[in-house]
Formats: sequence, structure tokens, C-alpha cells
Amino acid sequence: MAEKVPNNYSINDLISGIDNSNRLMLSKAITLIESKRPSDQKAATALIDAVLGKKPQSLRLGITGVPGVGKSTFIETFGLYAIEQGCKVAVLTVDPSSALSKGSILGDKTRMSKLSQSDQAFIRPSPSGSMTGGVANKTRETILLFEAAGYDVIIVETVGVGQSEVMVKDMVDFFLVLMLAGGGDELQGIKRGIMEMADGIAINKADGDNVKKAMLAKKSFESALHYFPAHPSGWKVPTETCSSLEGTGINTIWKQVHEFVDMTKSNGWFDQNRQKQNTHWLEELIQAKIKEAFYARSGTKEKVDALKSSIQAGEISVRNALNQMFPSS
Amino acid sequence: MAEKVPNNYSINDLISGIDNSNRLMLSKAITLIESKRPSDQKAATALIDAVLGKKPQSLRLGITGVPGVGKSTFIETFGLYAIEQGCKVAVLTVDPSSALSKGSILGDKTRMSKLSQSDQAFIRPSPSGSMTGGVANKTRETILLFEAAGYDVIIVETVGVGQSEVMVKDMVDFFLVLMLAGGGDELQGIKRGIMEMADGIAINKADGDNVKKAMLAKKSFESALHYFPAHPSGWKVPTETCSSLEGTGINTIWKQVHEFVDMTKSNGWFDQNRQKQNTHWLEELIQAKIKEAFYARSGTKEKVDALKSSIQAGEISVRNALNQMFPSS
Repeated sequence: MAEKVPNNYSINDLISGIDNSNRLMLSKAITLIESKRPSDQKAATALIDAVLGKKPQSLRLGITGVPGVGKSTFIETFGLYAIEQGCKVAVLTVDPSSALSKGSILGDKTRMSKLSQSDQAFIRPSPSGSMTGGVANKTRETILLFEAAGYDVIIVETVGVGQSEVMVKDMVDFFLVLMLAGGGDELQGIKRGIMEMADGIAINKADGDNVKKAMLAKKSFESALHYFPAHPSGWKVPTETCSSLEGTGINTIWKQVHEFVDMTKSNGWFDQNRQKQNTHWLEELIQAKIKEAFYARSGTKEKVDALKSSIQAGEISVRNALNQMFPSS
Repeated sequence: MAEKVPNNYSINDLISGIDNSNRLMLSKAITLIESKRPSDQKAATALIDAVLGKKPQSLRLGITGVPGVGKSTFIETFGLYAIEQGCKVAVLTVDPSSALSKGSILGDKTRMSKLSQSDQAFIRPSPSGSMTGGVANKTRETILLFEAAGYDVIIVETVGVGQSEVMVKDMVDFFLVLMLAGGGDELQGIKRGIMEMADGIAINKADGDNVKKAMLAKKSFESALHYFPAHPSGWKVPTETCSSLEGTGINTIWKQVHEFVDMTKSNGWFDQNRQKQNTHWLEELIQAKIKEAFYARSGTKEKVDALKSSIQAGEISVRNALNQMFPSS
């Protein structure tokens, strides 16, 4: 995998490449920050620190939805619309299932063929094979690189598996949940906690025979939203129908996202949220480091597992197990 | 506070006292496990290990609801009903607000005067002044002591503040959410995530002029439940109206709780849930220990705070901050 490490390029090459929106250099830069090699870490830090000074304006948009909801087509249509509005669009995927199976999100550009052909768009699949908390970290740093390279709409796509949505919600400004109109019981299928994370809801595939059902679903979701607490920013979470196929509703959603940005920038919530995300990012990394250091000690994992078994068997109390784990204290 | 430490009693006194349901010894035992004195820890561990062998049958019931929903009156009525059914009832409160203010849950027995007079009931207020994760740990151990002393219905009361409900949900078998019927908009006030934690919902104060409104609220909550995913055990979360004042609905809720226990005991979920809670308990304590050890190092907190400020000011990246925190790695 020697070609993945930018040995032929200096950090300055990468930095000036990013400055000039050079796609190859941007790609090499992302590969560098994704690298786990100890020898790459110093260069990666220098790179990230260098782009930090740029403080670009950007919109970070998270998009989620169950497999089959039409995320790729939506992102393609939405991305092309954003480009028409004069933006440069980057798409990143966070797909925790990809390491276990083929993945719910296909990790290639064939999904968004039109968008990937645009020189105003950059599509980067999920870092491969990493189920660890490292994904959040790498994705956050990739966002910074994209922003430094002049991409002003960063779309982070995820799929409703485990903690991935919580992770993405914690790195974006606006979290859009794609839904489908279904039978009367479609709302039963809403994933635990997802409605509460939404800054906006879009009912996709509202086209053809489906329009009427989508309108009903819209009403249904609107009343569902009444069961949830107010958005912490004061924002009223909108529900919209759209068709990626016919391109309807896309402009409304674009407008809603920007209304959200305008409102939260003027009331201060936008910046507060980013600051909170940054603080949380550091806390998470520190937490991960100290946990890693603890379990890296020889025999620790085995000891914890044995203690868990003893607890399950009712042989020892949790207090006793903790004492055995930390005898000195 | 010397009287709080049971110096005059041996561990054997406490253990045999608990065996005999001696209230004074039980009280002393709880004080011992709540103690933070290093010199008490060995005795506390011996005590907890001793009661562990008893493996009593019990029902752990969490009850939550906003201030004003009538938790005290409900618990008094429900507790007295449980005693009529031949049970012994213990009530514990977990109130994170009590350390900051007077507390939403009054920490004394005057709230449940009839229940507290019964020799089949034991009411224990929240461990005082502790906002830390220690509350969960102490409450879990207190549950074990109550069970060893023959209390077979353990009610853990909490109030909708911060993480306290998540904490209580993680230590009980059944989590009952008390609600009120209000105007048309009452559902707006539902706390983030609370509906998803409920194993049962009770609309309290369904008496007098309020009965009709309560019935409407019941329907409203029942349809709200459609917006949430199925209970992991296969249980269908019931909604019931009740009046602590008139005693109506209490028997139905009692029956529902026992239907839940029967169902989940026969499909294995009940035991799985308790096992999962125990494993999680140990993991939480380990996590807390290693975090504590990390921040206990001189200057660590100050360093983390300074790094956070630098991040907020845009001076350094999170990666750089982490490197400064862990220079060797």
C-alpha cells in the first residue's frame, strides 16, 4: 500500500495543493490523516494545524436514513442543486456496517455518477475497515481538509446502524433525516432516538403514485414531532416531501437549511454548537486514550472478562470485582 | 457525623440484622456502603459479598415523572397496595437536583406518611450531596441490601433531570413513567427520550373533572407510542390512567407490571437485562476509576482546560491538543 502514503510529497506540497483545491493533493492529504502509521502522525499534525488557520465558512450537513430510503440519489440531486447555487460540495460517508459486511452504503462513486463527474464535487467513501471510534476522529479531520480546500457544503452521509448517527449528529451543523412514506404503520419503524436528532425531515420518493402517501406521511411526521421537545436552538424542525427523481422539494429543503443557519448564526447557537462539538471531540479522544492505555496492559482484558463471568455467576459482587481490578485503592 | 458509622456493630451484626429484617441494622448497613471513608471500604465489601449469596426474588421498579405529576402520592398508594398483596416495599430516591437546590424530591418521609408508618415499608432518601456517578453505584448496592432484608418490591424514584432517568432505567426491571393530562399541547412537554425508556405509562390524577381529559391523554399517549420502536423484550408498552387520590387504576398497573415480569421471565429477557445491567455497572465503575486516576495527576485538569480554550480560540487543532496531552504516543 506504498502508494497510499504521500512519500513523494512534502507537507508544503499538500498544503499548497489544498490551497489551490488540487484534487490529487487533497486526496493524498486525507490518506495521510487517515494513516495509523506512527511515522505519519507528525506530518498529519502539521497538516491539520496548517489548515486550521484558514477558518473557512462552511455548512456541515449530516444525512441519514434507512437503507432503501434513497440517500445516494437524494445526495446527488441535492449536491448538484448546491453546485448550481455556486457551492462546492464534498460528500463523506460514515458507514459502520461496511467493516462487517458489504456495507449499507456502497463505498464507491458509481452511486452518484453525475455528482462525481462534477469538478465542483468531491466524494470520499468511508475509511475502510474501521469500526472504532477512530472513524469519528478521521471524519472530523477530513471535514477540516475539505473546508480548507474550499468546499463549502460538506455532506456527511450515514446509515441507521448503532451509534453512527449520534456520531454524525455530533459533527454537523444540520442533521437531515430522510424518511419514506409507507403503509399506515410506517412510523412504527422509526429508529430509537432518531426523530429527536433531526434538524429537518424529508420524505423522499414523493413522486408518481407516491405523492399522496408522502403528503399523508408529512402530516403524520409533523404531528409526531409534537411528541418531541423543542429544538435547543429555538428552531422549529420542518418536514418536507421531496423527489430526488423529479427534483421536487430540493429547493425547499435547501432554503430550510439556510434559514436554520441564518437563525442559529444570529442567535449564537451555531457557533456554540461547533464549540461544544470541538470540546466533546477532545474529551472523546482523551477518554479513548486512557481506556486504550488501561486495556493495553498485559492481562487486563482477560481479568475484566473473568470478573464479569464471576459477577454473572453470582459469585462476587461488582464492588468486589472492582477491588480486585484496583487492589491498591 | 460519628453516629453515621456503625462502629458499635460488627459486620456479623449487620448481616444477621439484615437476615432478620432489623430496620436499624439495615439502616446502618446502608450508611456503611454509602460511606466514602477508606477505612470503611473493606467492611462494606464484606457486607455486600455476604448478602450476595441470598439471591432473593424481587421486583425492581423505577418511577419517574416531572415535578407536580404526583410521584409521592402515587408511590404511597401503589406501595400500600403492594403491601396488601403481601409484599414488603422499599422506596429509594435518586434526585440529582438535591445537591444543587432544595431538590425536586423532598428527602424525607413526610411525603409518604402512611407508607412510612407501615412496618412492611422502608423509605430511604437520596444519598445526600452527591452529584457524581457514585449515586448509581450506591443506589444499586442499597437495592441489594433491601433485597437481602426481604423487601421484594424495590421502588426507585427519580425526577426528570439530566441523566438521572437513564441511570435509574439501568438498574430496574420495569420503568414506569408518570404523566399528566393537560391541555391539547401537553405532549410538547415530554422530556427528550423519556417515552422510549418507558415499560409502562400511567396518567396520574385521573379523578374528578380530570377523568375525561385523562382518557383523552391516554389515547394520545397510545398513539404517541406508535412513533417509537418495539420494546426489545417483545413487550407491548401499556398506557393506563390512575388516581392516587381515589386509588383507581393502581391494581391495573400492578397487574401490568406482573404481566411484564411473567412474560420477560419466561422469554429470558428479564435475566438477560439484569445480567447486562451488572456488566454495565462494572464497566462504568472501571471507566470512572481510570478517568479519576488520570485527572488526579497533578495539573492534568488545568492542562485539559487550557487546551480546550486554545481549541475554542482556533489556535490549535484537536489532534495537536491530544498530542500535547499524550506527548509520548
